[in-house]
Amino acid sequence: MRKNALLAFAIALSAVRVSGQSTATDAFHNNLMPEPSSLTANTGSLSITNGLTVSATGASSPLLDHAIVRMISRLEDRTGLQLSKQIQTAPTATLVIDVRSAGPAVQSFEEDESYSLTSTANSIKIEAATPVGALHAMETLLQLVQASGSSYVIPSVTIQDSPRFRWRGLMIDCGRHFEPIEVLKRNIDAMAAVKLNVFHWHLTEDQGFRIESKRFPKLTEKGSDGLFYTQEQARDLVAYARERGIRVVPEFEMPGHSVAWLVAYPELNSGSQPTGIRREFGVSDYVLDPTHPETYKFIDSFLTEMTTIFPDEYIHIGGDEAPAPDWKKNPRILAFMKAHDLHDNDALQAYFNTQVLGILTKLHRRMAGWDEIFNPALPKDVVIQSWRGVASLAKGAQQGYEGILSAPYYIDGMQPAGKLYLADPVPADTTLTPEQQKLILGGEVPMWAEHLDQRTIDSRIWPRTAAIAERFWSPQNVRDVDDMYRRLDVVSVELETLGLRHLTSEDAELRALAGSENIAAMRDFASAFEPVSFGERSSTQHTTQLTPLTSFVDAVRPDPPIRHQIEVAAKTFLTAPTAQDPATNDAHQLLLHFFETVGASVPRVQLVMDRQPRFQPIHTRAEQLTELSVIGIDALKYLNTSTTPPAQWKEHSLAQIEAAKKPSGLVNFTFLPALTQLVNATR
Amino acid sequence: MRKNALLAFAIALSAVRVSGQSTATDAFHNNLMPEPSSLTANTGSLSITNGLTVSATGASSPLLDHAIVRMISRLEDRTGLQLSKQIQTAPTATLVIDVRSAGPAVQSFEEDESYSLTSTANSIKIEAATPVGALHAMETLLQLVQASGSSYVIPSVTIQDSPRFRWRGLMIDCGRHFEPIEVLKRNIDAMAAVKLNVFHWHLTEDQGFRIESKRFPKLTEKGSDGLFYTQEQARDLVAYARERGIRVVPEFEMPGHSVAWLVAYPELNSGSQPTGIRREFGVSDYVLDPTHPETYKFIDSFLTEMTTIFPDEYIHIGGDEAPAPDWKKNPRILAFMKAHDLHDNDALQAYFNTQVLGILTKLHRRMAGWDEIFNPALPKDVVIQSWRGVASLAKGAQQGYEGILSAPYYIDGMQPAGKLYLADPVPADTTLTPEQQKLILGGEVPMWAEHLDQRTIDSRIWPRTAAIAERFWSPQNVRDVDDMYRRLDVVSVELETLGLRHLTSEDAELRALAGSENIAAMRDFASAFEPVSFGERSSTQHTTQLTPLTSFVDAVRPDPPIRHQIEVAAKTFLTAPTAQDPATNDAHQLLLHFFETVGASVPRVQLVMDRQPRFQPIHTRAEQLTELSVIGIDALKYLNTSTTPPAQWKEHSLAQIEAAKKPSGLVNFTFLPALTQLVNATR
Repeated sequence: MRKNALLAFAIALSAVRVSGQSTATDAFHNNLMPEPSSLTANTGSLSITNGLTVSATGASSPLLDHAIVRMISRLEDRTGLQLSKQIQTAPTATLVIDVRSAGPAVQSFEEDESYSLTSTANSIKIEAATPVGALHAMETLLQLVQASGSSYVIPSVTIQDSPRFRWRGLMIDCGRHFEPIEVLKRNIDAMAAVKLNVFHWHLTEDQGFRIESKRFPKLTEKGSDGLFYTQEQARDLVAYARERGIRVVPEFEMPGHSVAWLVAYPELNSGSQPTGIRREFGVSDYVLDPTHPETYKFIDSFLTEMTTIFPDEYIHIGGDEAPAPDWKKNPRILAFMKAHDLHDNDALQAYFNTQVLGILTKLHRRMAGWDEIFNPALPKDVVIQSWRGVASLAKGAQQGYEGILSAPYYIDGMQPAGKLYLADPVPADTTLTPEQQKLILGGEVPMWAEHLDQRTIDSRIWPRTAAIAERFWSPQNVRDVDDMYRRLDVVSVELETLGLRHLTSEDAELRALAGSENIAAMRDFASAFEPVSFGERSSTQHTTQLTPLTSFVDAVRPDPPIRHQIEVAAKTFLTAPTAQDPATNDAHQLLLHFFETVGASVPRVQLVMDRQPRFQPIHTRAEQLTELSVIGIDALKYLNTSTTPPAQWKEHSLAQIEAAKKPSGLVNFTFLPALTQLVNATR
Repeated sequence: MRKNALLAFAIALSAVRVSGQSTATDAFHNNLMPEPSSLTANTGSLSITNGLTVSATGASSPLLDHAIVRMISRLEDRTGLQLSKQIQTAPTATLVIDVRSAGPAVQSFEEDESYSLTSTANSIKIEAATPVGALHAMETLLQLVQASGSSYVIPSVTIQDSPRFRWRGLMIDCGRHFEPIEVLKRNIDAMAAVKLNVFHWHLTEDQGFRIESKRFPKLTEKGSDGLFYTQEQARDLVAYARERGIRVVPEFEMPGHSVAWLVAYPELNSGSQPTGIRREFGVSDYVLDPTHPETYKFIDSFLTEMTTIFPDEYIHIGGDEAPAPDWKKNPRILAFMKAHDLHDNDALQAYFNTQVLGILTKLHRRMAGWDEIFNPALPKDVVIQSWRGVASLAKGAQQGYEGILSAPYYIDGMQPAGKLYLADPVPADTTLTPEQQKLILGGEVPMWAEHLDQRTIDSRIWPRTAAIAERFWSPQNVRDVDDMYRRLDVVSVELETLGLRHLTSEDAELRALAGSENIAAMRDFASAFEPVSFGERSSTQHTTQLTPLTSFVDAVRPDPPIRHQIEVAAKTFLTAPTAQDPATNDAHQLLLHFFETVGASVPRVQLVMDRQPRFQPIHTRAEQLTELSVIGIDALKYLNTSTTPPAQWKEHSLAQIEAAKKPSGLVNFTFLPALTQLVNATR
């Protein structure tokens, strides 16, 4: 036990080194995420005391004033100091914030979001064109806070910062599973913390219509199970986001993904009529009738009403996945197509989009839609959100369409942050001309909601989305994955202080599975796993909107920090497996500790399985974990002592690793690549 | 390390034994809290399958229907099965719920809350007078769910249940710190889970006026910092509580604790005028003027408005702590007292209460108030809430007043659940006559909010309040503290599944302190501590409403489960410290593991302290913990091996324990009584 305590201590030291948390020092320690476009660290720092004052010397802005008070409040929480929330006007305050104008009432993607931040030993100056830039600057400022001896300081830096892309979004699908307003608000807080600026609110789906219409009340009466946002709530959320520098782009899916519309208003259908809200996932055959004048009157009236809630320049009409078999067999629709020279469904959908575009234009709104709206029949002032990938996006740009990239950022694919991070809306090797590149407005992270609910959504979005946010904001050459992970660990905890539950939800679900507060072993066990991707889960488990989401797969998180730590440790250790330098030794200790800990957790976790049927599908994974942990420990021993393993050991071990890659229990092991490297490295 | 894994395994076994979680079996395993008044366990059980059906065969009640759907949803989460939410009417469903009447529109404390629940291998029957009884029955049903092999079952039982007390409350002070509606809602969910039935909403304080008045809008404009409940929100909360069988009794403090009223309406003051919302805690000198006719016109108008929001029969007028020095020096007030033959402040306050009682009576409301309203001048139909204790309560009852006990349940005193649990509104040795005993309506847990905010409130209330809820509900002779703790561990996790954050908040705050997700050592360290009481904190630290609450004391929880486990283990071990029976051995292992773990955590935690100034006040406690853990390990060694400790060891150790009892860092050690016993037991 004492020995183990020492080992734990070594691991802690190692973790400190890995996470880059230095002990207190005046020297600037970079925990910023996203990285600013330009930063110069100077010597010295400003001590934060309870005498700190803040002034706003530029254009008057209630939005800015509110943001300053929130910033001070977070600084209080961080430092434990009680600070004044009086905003002064004198330019002699500790922190002086100067914005040139109050900015437009409705935030635009063309707004100048740049800012500068200069801190010295005596004062801090923030300058920005509008309050939105100042908001970004204050988030940077909070990330600059570090400890020095017994106080907190702001190190002296000079920062000039502006985003690489103007459209940096997160989409949340509230159709398949409804998310309460407080969930959205805390996610908006998190978005603001990492300088995202578009909340794309996916409000309608086959599985639910989530926004109140007073003109068409049946949409939510019949199409929502009572789970929808009132107009008052939606307006409040739009205002909440605006105060945090975030636009709200609402999405109303049409003509497909529209079962919830049709349940309420059958007169809009193309021939077939759904009997109720769709519970199954996947693509539905029910679509709006694009040939019926009533359809456009309805859409016009509905969108007119929605513009009183959503002031943003853009309205997203979805437009994806509308196979519409009825269009190919409804005689009236076929006749219409013939009369209008529309040769196939794509042409008919383009016709539909053109009509809707006319309505939006009349309402002084611009259209956004998924890849499918990309059709030469549409004028160039629509924005195409690409779920098909960089190539599709580039093709649109070459034809003059503005676009935003989403395909690589589908976070229900459960890819690690490091991989998501490197995907670039305009890769270094792009063949687009500079003019065409300007048409790539940015990117969006889509959070589709088949397999999540309010308990688990945060851990699906965060912290990985913070890494993508850096991709959207920071210069293209900021691509050091290890350094990103180091900063991500810090940001992740900062997000939790904003109310996010991405770190606590795993524990809560594990406790529910264990039926006890005592989950030390469950935690160790869970650290070896991550959820399978949306695709893998869909192909293995039949889930619907009504499936309870309280299985082990729902508890565990994608890309738990230990995954990358193991990967790095294996790389470090394998460069010199028997060397005595501290980094190698730390790496060896971390790997050994990991395999021993997860292995030791199994028998305790099996006790829980025996009394918790809901947990029993993990049975095979538990047995595999025992085997794999022994392989890991043995491999380390052979490598560390330069011993040749017994005959067949390597083949046998690799076969077990291979077997562990097969689907089971809806979770995957996090450490198989590292373990494979270790095994292969033995003699 | 391997050795340690085995040890961990032994501890896990021990924990399983301690927590009473048996492996799956058909036999009824009692995890009910509160315990029902009568329960017979029969043989057999009903397997829960996705074919489970529910019918409501009695009086029609939307409230009941909603509750059934919520219950099914929780059953789905628990079992992982997708169940039908269609409520049938046939008496042949798996679960038949029969209520005799829909009950009154406004819930009364006189409502019959009793129910019966009979489960067999084939069906379950719930019968109740009104839906409120059926709600209680459904909470019991959910607690009955247990595992059997690979499925979940309801064991066969016959339960007849009704509450011992009719008024079972939780008061939340939203004045000193505002709590968002979602915090209140999840606390109401938790209340319902343990069969509490009164949410006492403390809405006004010197530090804030939290309810919107349209007649007197300045109350919140000037008295709330913008933190208040709109009338719509309050009505929604009342409806939310009603749907869960919980009355909402609002409290409007008068004539004292009224700074927020007076900031808004200075014309109501007794002579002195506050300059702003009070930030300091403690008793204020500012009070309403009880001699001014305007005061009563104001109160009349205000309360009339409030009755449109709060339908409950009772309105709580506070009435406590009104020293009112102005009453003794304002000539106009002195003249009034003389003219009305009122000899002192108490008499004047009784006069005031009589006037307010008149207003309430006119509004068809009854009055509740704190001890101070107890005055012979008032008629007998007021309810006295006693913060002075059982004796004061009994005295009221002897004079014919109805009362509810609060004094022993002040949970900001941070007493362990076991102690709170044993305090009884009508102790077994009461001298009250049966008639007088009937006047004791029950009790209330007051959650005063000087030192909490929305991040920490849940851990201050739960799970300890569940133990008190059992006191209010279950028969007087249900008093086994060890068994209570066993069931409390299970209930605590159930509460978390309802959205409570009492278990996650500690981790979140520790991560914020550590600035990293890696808090294994911080967790171990924290398990040795609990927060000091409100009184101890107040006397050591100057806090105001504006003090940031992000210190270590805010992170740690009162009465962490390990506290009682250590206490029990020490008792078990000391009955035969060297015996080889499994219970003694388990106890020894648990104690050794605890002391080794908390001791080993210190150096790692000190690394965090070095870089986190906010955490540095715990420096002394960390050093003490190192010493104390060594004492614990040594004591176990001497006892286990029947070795005589070195000279001076015992005196020296007891002196160190004594030193550790002194205040430091606003936290106390949880294990000193057990450690003292161990040291004293050595030769």
